[in-house]
Amino acid sequence: MIEVVKIGGNVVDNPDALSAFLADFASLPSPKILIHGGGKEATRLSKTLGIKTTMIEGRRVTDADTLQVVTMVYAGLINKRIVSLLQSLGCNAVGLSGADGNLIPAKRRNPEPVDYGFVGDIDAAKVNSDMLYSLFNGGFTPVVCAICHDGNGLLLNCNADSVAGAVAVGASRLGSVRLTYCFEQPGVMRDVADSNSVIPMIDEAGFEQLRADGIVDKGMIPKLHNALRCARSGVSEVRICSSQALLGSSGTIIRSER
Amino acid sequence: MIEVVKIGGNVVDNPDALSAFLADFASLPSPKILIHGGGKEATRLSKTLGIKTTMIEGRRVTDADTLQVVTMVYAGLINKRIVSLLQSLGCNAVGLSGADGNLIPAKRRNPEPVDYGFVGDIDAAKVNSDMLYSLFNGGFTPVVCAICHDGNGLLLNCNADSVAGAVAVGASRLGSVRLTYCFEQPGVMRDVADSNSVIPMIDEAGFEQLRADGIVDKGMIPKLHNALRCARSGVSEVRICSSQALLGSSGTIIRSER
Repeated sequence: MIEVVKIGGNVVDNPDALSAFLADFASLPSPKILIHGGGKEATRLSKTLGIKTTMIEGRRVTDADTLQVVTMVYAGLINKRIVSLLQSLGCNAVGLSGADGNLIPAKRRNPEPVDYGFVGDIDAAKVNSDMLYSLFNGGFTPVVCAICHDGNGLLLNCNADSVAGAVAVGASRLGSVRLTYCFEQPGVMRDVADSNSVIPMIDEAGFEQLRADGIVDKGMIPKLHNALRCARSGVSEVRICSSQALLGSSGTIIRSER
Repeated sequence: MIEVVKIGGNVVDNPDALSAFLADFASLPSPKILIHGGGKEATRLSKTLGIKTTMIEGRRVTDADTLQVVTMVYAGLINKRIVSLLQSLGCNAVGLSGADGNLIPAKRRNPEPVDYGFVGDIDAAKVNSDMLYSLFNGGFTPVVCAICHDGNGLLLNCNADSVAGAVAVGASRLGSVRLTYCFEQPGVMRDVADSNSVIPMIDEAGFEQLRADGIVDKGMIPKLHNALRCARSGVSEVRICSSQALLGSSGTIIRSER
């Protein structure tokens, strides 16, 4: 089983949470891949540099200055922080952007109807699974940030959830893949105020029902969409859980069919 | 022949010079490795962030804030800029720090007599040549910045000339290596004001003589020291030349013996 795990800014930004999470991650059997975000630190650096942060529907509008900031923070600061910590835990991590080894080709998003700037969209079919094979074969654990490229010399800021999904689908050409999205909540909840309301399993029909009933919150809808697309595209198991529950089986399993 | 090439901040910082250089580099036959500096951009970002830059004998004193800056600039901004440009030139570049895959273990420099902070020194014998082999085997071209690690979770700012030398010595365990230091001058000159005064060849005895005569300038002495050490340690050819002369044979060849 190839494990693909995604963590977000809330873990990355908190040294204690990050150490605890990485110890769990390092203990997973290889082959495995870690995908990370880091939006909070990018926002902080932008602010210090006097660069305005604009978010539209949770996505960062990426002008030329912001592209420099996210490249520095995601591919530099956070990626190497994680790599050096994993190395200290005996996990032979190699930090990568999607440009490295042409791992994740992306296409700049059409500026219509909304111009997000240097933001890219990914086609999972184009993920370079030969490169993943080569890295696994060398005993390496890829640690991937969401900076990708268009192949013509342009870096593009991509969504880390989408990167994780695309990498999981790409890795599924090499073997069975379990994709785990770790975030601050224990799973997809019927009531965000009630940690006992985690929904253990969601399939396509269940997702449509939850959405029709207005039960899942707005930020969760793209995550579930993405998770369902992965489940339909060859990923054996997709789970959404707390970053503290990586080693357990709690959280919400997303399946294309029951 | 394995080509190991080092470029400094003057090329990295100038888009036209960088494009021209990378086109030359991409045209070299593989296997090859590019090592880059980027001090000017780090100094600029430090200034914008209100972090004081202190240099002692040309080496950057690296406090915790400066370590973050150089990690962002070298491993993020510059490394991924180079990787995406090389990708657009058909060169399958993979950007790495010395922490990635434990490529370059370093040791934090003793704070006595001068405390450089988070600065590391490298033992060429510890460079992970298995990783280089694995990357060459996968058809990849490593692009390496001078951020290394101590194996205990600490990133360390290292000297890019030393990194290039250590990587070249490490690579020489896999085959013959030519190491080229590209910089702003056409080679080691008898008179920095006279571009026709390039010294075509320097060996140990010649270096001692040049130093005794006070002919080579102060900044060149550690470069020559480093180059001679590489020549003694298994690197077949060491050359110092202009970044515009990568494909030619001009410049200064450094040999341990005549």
